[in-house]
Parts: sequence; structure tokens; C-alpha cells
Amino acid sequence: MCAPFVLEDVRQELSRRGFIAAVAACGAGVAAPAAAQQKQVRMPKGFRDVVDLTHPFSAKLPVYPAYKPIQVRERFNVARDGFAANEVTFDEHTGTHVDAPSHFVAGGVSGDRIPAAQLIAPLAVIAIADRAAKNADTLVTVDDLLVWEKRHGRLPSGALVAMDAGWDARANSSDRFLNRDAKGVLHSPGFSEQAAHFLVDQRDIAGVGVDTLSLDGGAAQKFVAHLTILGAGKYGVELMANLSRIPPAGATVFIGAMKHEGATGGPARIIAVI
Amino acid sequence: MCAPFVLEDVRQELSRRGFIAAVAACGAGVAAPAAAQQKQVRMPKGFRDVVDLTHPFSAKLPVYPAYKPIQVRERFNVARDGFAANEVTFDEHTGTHVDAPSHFVAGGVSGDRIPAAQLIAPLAVIAIADRAAKNADTLVTVDDLLVWEKRHGRLPSGALVAMDAGWDARANSSDRFLNRDAKGVLHSPGFSEQAAHFLVDQRDIAGVGVDTLSLDGGAAQKFVAHLTILGAGKYGVELMANLSRIPPAGATVFIGAMKHEGATGGPARIIAVI
Repeated sequence: MCAPFVLEDVRQELSRRGFIAAVAACGAGVAAPAAAQQKQVRMPKGFRDVVDLTHPFSAKLPVYPAYKPIQVRERFNVARDGFAANEVTFDEHTGTHVDAPSHFVAGGVSGDRIPAAQLIAPLAVIAIADRAAKNADTLVTVDDLLVWEKRHGRLPSGALVAMDAGWDARANSSDRFLNRDAKGVLHSPGFSEQAAHFLVDQRDIAGVGVDTLSLDGGAAQKFVAHLTILGAGKYGVELMANLSRIPPAGATVFIGAMKHEGATGGPARIIAVI
Repeated sequence: MCAPFVLEDVRQELSRRGFIAAVAACGAGVAAPAAAQQKQVRMPKGFRDVVDLTHPFSAKLPVYPAYKPIQVRERFNVARDGFAANEVTFDEHTGTHVDAPSHFVAGGVSGDRIPAAQLIAPLAVIAIADRAAKNADTLVTVDDLLVWEKRHGRLPSGALVAMDAGWDARANSSDRFLNRDAKGVLHSPGFSEQAAHFLVDQRDIAGVGVDTLSLDGGAAQKFVAHLTILGAGKYGVELMANLSRIPPAGATVFIGAMKHEGATGGPARIIAVI
């Protein structure tokens, strides 16, 4: 149902006709709770499920040290201006986001130049959440990748290979997500140097994803996974959500990377279809 | 080929191993021109073509009056900091972007609450570029929609119905894109009130797209198409590119809408697969 002030706003503008239609449409959707809407949503033809791998992007979401949280500032609102619009400011590597090669490689491919066809990818999920629950410094190893291949076949060409460390469940707490020790060192899973090399040297992937804030383990002294993956012209995806809802093999993921010129990366809407 | 300074950066970090692999990978892609890369890109399995419907997002791109161009400010760079990252500021309704219902409807669904399944949509392209070249005020009519249906069948459930007015070819000139007359009135195509009503009342669409800056014609006194479409809980997509490269029926489009909380819309990476 729509609140009366909503109807009033619509009625004022749709003066000549369409008010009844607007009320009907409103009852059908405008103010329905998101959960109820979700139930009514028909799956796109040819897919049996759609999973949003994107965290809601807000100032509460953990950010990697050096970056600041997103700011959303109202510029226009419906009551005063007849329409609403915000100004948004963020550091590129916040929220669920893409790392372009240019994030770590001077002269590397920027986000706006990643070919669109690479942003639609077979999704391979490497599940290490059980291990990560016991050891926050655990890394995806070459063995993990070979075990995946033994079960599901060779990693597909053009794949996004994503680590599910169960870290998205910590997203409501920066302390738990960053997981600093007494010395300030971060502890979170990532890709080992060897696994990163295996993926870019031995397989034909499009990118590497993590549900943490970094392709490298939090405690890494150098960004070797970043440098290896981005240095090979592949992209990274960080702070992914809901990977535990995706089968290890068979899903397709759409990486809705921002396309501002010279992007070193940026927030992305990431949606998987199964 | 990679510039020597790129290799040097990579070599400094990949000290122990992998330099040779990095050089090889670099030659294979990092610094290759975008056009050359595009050619090498393998299509995602199951699709024969991928078309990016997103304009490169820069301060040169036309903006609707009241909004200001995107600002990208360097915060870190590889030479000084070992990595590069920018701060980005934009008004939500700039670049190729989504209009959420909350853009015009107080209490309407915000961008972060549009269900992911609605962001993967059959794409119906209504081509009116020939007409628009002669009359910038032309609007998509109910007849245009019925002609499309006569050729291609009923507009699919959950579709994005997009107007191709040939306006993307003007994107390199704000003057030609906005197309103001001597009195400052904008002249650009959009959806007629009746067509908007038809789509939300008589069909089961997810959203409406345009290659102009507004769902309404530029000369419209009131935002009736906006109010009708967003008022019915559907989303809009504005400043789309490359619609002329899409068949009128049969493509699927991914709407990579930003997911910041309370979004009235925002820049989106939009990619069609055929």
C-alpha cells in the first residue's frame, strides 16, 4: 500500500488522467516491502535463480585502511523540488568493487577499458569458509584450485575465480571484518602467491574475486596477489557478498563495473545467474 | 607491449619470482590497445555477442540542467604510493544511469532495493532515430509499441523497453545533445504520456530506457513519463549508448545499478548479450 502523501504527490502531477491507474500501480508495487516484492519477481527467462553478490553500499560497510566511507548528500528532494537526487562521493576501492589493472600497474588497463565481454564470466567459487573460521590467515592454495578442478573440470576460460571465506557475514562489523591484532596487523584470507600465479600463468581467467577487502591475505607484507593478478591484465573483485549461495560451478556472473574514465576500479553491481 | 616503466614497477615488487611470467602476461594484454583487446576477447559461453550500452563516464558527457559533471580526483598513485586510487564525486543522475522510483516518488523504491532479478531483462528496442533526425520533439507513441509487437510478439514480461532515438551519436557535444532553442527550451525525444501508461498499465515491464537525458521529451512541461513509469514502481535508464547495435528483440540486458543506500538512482554499467 502507498502512504497518503505518496498518492497526493502523484495526484498533483497526474492531473488530467491516470490517477486511478497510478493508485492501482502503487498498490501493486511502489510501497510494498522489498521482501514481498522479491517474492513476486519472475526470474529472467532461461535462468532459475538470480543472486545479488553486492553488499548494500553505505558508510557502515568496512573500508580498507587509507580509504574513507562513502558520503551521500541530498541535493534535491521531492517535497521541495518535485524530484529527489543526491550527490555521492566515494573512494574507488570501497563497497563491493572492482580493481582494474591500473590500480597497481602504472599504465595498466583502467576500469573503463576492461572489455564488456570480460565482465560476463563463468563463476567458480572456491569455498574455504570452514578453514577460515579456524584460521583467519588461511590462503587459497594451488591445491584448493586443483581440488575444485577434480570435482568440476578445468576452470573455464574467461572465469571469475572467487574465494568464499565466509567473510561477508562479518560485514556489519568493521572490527570483525578487518580483524586487527594488538599490533594493528589485519588478519583475513586471500589468495596465495602461488595460486595467483597458477591462475594467470596456467589458466585463462578474466579475474579473481574475494569476499574480503583484499586479494592478498590481510597480514601480507607485500601485495603479491594484487601485483600478479592485476599485473597480468586481469581484474579483481573485492567485498563480494552471498557467495555461499552460489554453486561451486555453473553460475554466470555479471560484473557491473563503473565506467568513469581513468578508473583504477570502482563500486560495481555484481549479480550472478544460475 | 608494456612500457619499460611498467615492467620496472612490476619487477621491483615481484622480486623473488614471476618476473618472466609477468613480462609474458604483460605482452599478452596489459598495455594492448583496447580495440585490439576487444578482438581477442572470447564471447561468454552461450552468447554470440556482447554490447556495452554504457557511455564512458567523464566530465565531457552531457548532463541534465541542475546537475554537475562527474569529478575524479587522484588520491594515490603508483609512483608515489605503490598503488593508485581516485576519489569520485557525481550527481546520481549523470552518466549512463538508472532512475529509481524514489527519484520522483516520495517513499518510492530506492535504487538499492530494486530486486536483482529485475536488473536482468529482455531488451526491446524501439527505433525512432529516422524520425528523430527530422523532428527532435518526436515521442515514442503507443502505435510505435504496437508496431513492435506486430513484428516481434508481445513485449516480454520483465522487459526493459528502450528508445533508440540516435541520440548517443550526439554525446560528444552537450550543445547538440541538449539541443536548446533560443528560449532555452530543450528539444529531444522521449516517451509520450500515453506510451508510458500503456507500458505500465497494459504490459508487465521492468523498466523504460532512453538514449537521451530524460524519459520525457526535452520540451515537456511536466515530467509525466517519469511520474507514470517511476510512480508504477518501474525503473528508468537514461543516456544509453549503442542501442542501434542491438536487434529490436531477443537481447538480454544487465543493468549494473549502483547499490548505495537511499539511492534515487545512479551511474550503471549496462551490458547487453545477444
